[in-house]
Amino acid sequence: MRAYLGRRYRLSASHRLHAESLSEAENRAAFGKCNNPFGHGHNYVVEVIVGGEVDSVTGMVCDLVKLDACVNTEIVERFDHTNLNTFERFEKEVPTTENLNLEVYRLLSHAVDRGALGKAELVSVRIEETSNNSFEYPVARERKAGAE
Amino acid sequence: MRAYLGRRYRLSASHRLHAESLSEAENRAAFGKCNNPFGHGHNYVVEVIVGGEVDSVTGMVCDLVKLDACVNTEIVERFDHTNLNTFERFEKEVPTTENLNLEVYRLLSHAVDRGALGKAELVSVRIEETSNNSFEYPVARERKAGAE
Amino acid sequence: MRAYLGRRYRLSASHRLHAESLSEAENRAAFGKCNNPFGHGHNYVVEVIVGGEVDSVTGMVCDLVKLDACVNTEIVERFDHTNLNTFERFEKEVPTTENLNLEVYRLLSHAVDRGALGKAELVSVRIEETSNNSFEYPVARERKAGAE
Amino acid sequence: MRAYLGRRYRLSASHRLHAESLSEAENRAAFGKCNNPFGHGHNYVVEVIVGGEVDSVTGMVCDLVKLDACVNTEIVERFDHTNLNTFERFEKEVPTTENLNLEVYRLLSHAVDRGALGKAELVSVRIEETSNNSFEYPVARERKAGAE
Amino acid sequence: MRAYLGRRYRLSASHRLHAESLSEAENRAAFGKCNNPFGHGHNYVVEVIVGGEVDSVTGMVCDLVKLDACVNTEIVERFDHTNLNTFERFEKEVPTTENLNLEVYRLLSHAVDRGALGKAELVSVRIEETSNNSFEYPVARERKAGAE
Amino acid sequence: MRAYLGRRYRLSASHRLHAESLSEAENRAAFGKCNNPFGHGHNYVVEVIVGGEVDSVTGMVCDLVKLDACVNTEIVERFDHTNLNTFERFEKEVPTTENLNLEVYRLLSHAVDRGALGKAELVSVRIEETSNNSFEYPVARERKAGAE
Repeated sequence: MRAYLGRRYRLSASHRLHAESLSEAENRAAFGKCNNPFGHGHNYVVEVIVGGEVDSVTGMVCDLVKLDACVNTEIVERFDHTNLNTFERFEKEVPTTENLNLEVYRLLSHAVDRGALGKAELVSVRIEETSNNSFEYPVARERKAGAE
Repeated sequence: MRAYLGRRYRLSASHRLHAESLSEAENRAAFGKCNNPFGHGHNYVVEVIVGGEVDSVTGMVCDLVKLDACVNTEIVERFDHTNLNTFERFEKEVPTTENLNLEVYRLLSHAVDRGALGKAELVSVRIEETSNNSFEYPVARERKAGAE
Repeated sequence: MRAYLGRRYRLSASHRLHAESLSEAENRAAFGKCNNPFGHGHNYVVEVIVGGEVDSVTGMVCDLVKLDACVNTEIVERFDHTNLNTFERFEKEVPTTENLNLEVYRLLSHAVDRGALGKAELVSVRIEETSNNSFEYPVARERKAGAE
Repeated sequence: MRAYLGRRYRLSASHRLHAESLSEAENRAAFGKCNNPFGHGHNYVVEVIVGGEVDSVTGMVCDLVKLDACVNTEIVERFDHTNLNTFERFEKEVPTTENLNLEVYRLLSHAVDRGALGKAELVSVRIEETSNNSFEYPVARERKAGAE
Repeated sequence: MRAYLGRRYRLSASHRLHAESLSEAENRAAFGKCNNPFGHGHNYVVEVIVGGEVDSVTGMVCDLVKLDACVNTEIVERFDHTNLNTFERFEKEVPTTENLNLEVYRLLSHAVDRGALGKAELVSVRIEETSNNSFEYPVARERKAGAE
Repeated sequence: MRAYLGRRYRLSASHRLHAESLSEAENRAAFGKCNNPFGHGHNYVVEVIVGGEVDSVTGMVCDLVKLDACVNTEIVERFDHTNLNTFERFEKEVPTTENLNLEVYRLLSHAVDRGALGKAELVSVRIEETSNNSFEYPVARERKAGAE
């Protein structure tokens, strides 16, 4: 009996979207007001989706104490109340929410590989940037014939 | 690195559910109070889900200026503050939210085929009709036996 | 044209997480404050996701009168304003939201097998336990290599 | 010990904003796209706020069975899944959400005067027309200079 | 410059509504399914509203570290993941959300009187019991000529 | 017939909480992680509450076209996608949400004094900084003995 758990965490952070390889005009064209040199910010909601067998004794897919410890250490303490542009990763990559999503997934995957969630697996990471925009990696509600 | 973006748009519209091919009694049985001859209405939330490679320069799956232009032109300006029954498409088809969902997907697909979103692809359209009811096409959280 | 409908129902119930096969210390370690002997409670939101062909006459995936009758009879009237530990099923299994999710799916599947939803199929059940935690079975946003 | 209870009810209805006393051009200027001759619609959330002593035996401000019976009879059954322009009241008055708010308050006040809520009093009615717009009558979060 | 801050805290608890002074039949009449002997539960959202001068140096109405310490100690740690009927206060009083609201206000008032919030004042406590029901004490959106 | 309208606008901005008149240690004590030198950010929801007579012809408290023009010009275009610390006002005052609230109210009041909303009056401004924290000025749900 494989089931899924999604748990939401919250971050407030700032960022400026600006690519070093683009000219000023290209940056404005690509990022609009998000290119404002002094930055702006968001309340990000990070939903971590894990899957696994429902344990026959505890009735749980994943120990929530472990999940919270993992996500708080790897993600919330790292990114909450920060400026994303100050991270090494975002020196070479623009700190869009897509790239933040990939980075959150990468950090959690490494922790999960080290056993942070016991037998539960990391399925996907979904980030809500505003009440209208959300991002998801690596899995979304897509399925096409012959996909992958 | 393929990721997904969901972006929400809002429409207020009215409709009456009534099938020409059914009798009055059958219409009442099929649609209940939604068959009220003078119609009723909803605030529809249309979430458009697109997928694509995260661009290595901009860090984005899809240019939001393009996405907004596409959805506003094709969908919001067309359907917002209207009576759905007045559209040609809904002369032959009952303007249920399922059929609105198919029509929104069809209109956006054509625009995407004409290049409206650059390299990003349309994955799915999800419409919330009320805070309790939502519809999705063509993809949902479905997975068939043997899929794993 | 196969589309999907998600409809949300609400339950308030109490539970205590406690496994007979574990010692007191193990129960505290596994369930923390959820092991409190007098229980606690939640407002559960149960989203039932069904799929099917959009009917060419009615424009609907599923008759909502049938869906409501089915979910109200099988789930809401059974579990709303109850203590989950008092159900026979939860004598042997801890009434975690994972196990509640499996039970809701099982009960609805049987009703659907008896024809409760006409031609519509049960795709998944998703339960929100709090505004931060949700569970889903059997389908989630997962896709592995080779699927389909 | 006087306390307050707010309870939310939901209506889907359509309307067209059009004043008989204004010209076509004035109607368009006043109401914009809400003047569309075929109407449009909303999901209205009606929050009814009542106040009263907390009963020393039951611990309640108002019997919810009575409150639901009153609001369902007077408001929900009357306006849900209707076109507001078809009501006599809205022949002379434009069915804006402000006027709907006044009418809901008037109808509930009469019922309360007839004893529908026992000793509880009607304090205010607040209607959410969309997720961004809400209306309230007769009381709001207003306080005049010198009020302290 | 006096301004207001509302901050939300979350509790999951169970309760049974039952008055010792009423007969079985009266209890059922007064509380319906909330009188179920094994109880049920809710996710309560407790919004604490404080007011005060905006400090000319810090720009804040209330130190959030103090507010969180106060509400967590007095309310969250006391009531979260508990059965409300097990508290002494609720031996004599039915643990309705109205009575919980009065008790939360009383506990916070005492802490504020002991200086827990510095110069900020406690204005009101509002509890959401479900997404449809909320309670507030002692202040609500009521104001009548000559009130109080 | 005086009624009230609340309308919500959205801003994304960054800020750093730091008072020039305080030492480094005092700044850390007062603002904690909000004192991070590179700032952080939020999605602010600004709810503008206006009151007025319901116009007997249009049935409206306030012309929404005027209200949107006023709030977009004075507030959204000024503060959206900016760093609040770069504004002259916030050189002398810490850009807490309390101070942002006072500034938004001040800017809107001046516009209203110049006739921006016709006969409607500005009642209050409420800002949600996160899903848990909100601020309001000058009016809140407070009422003292003898008020009015």
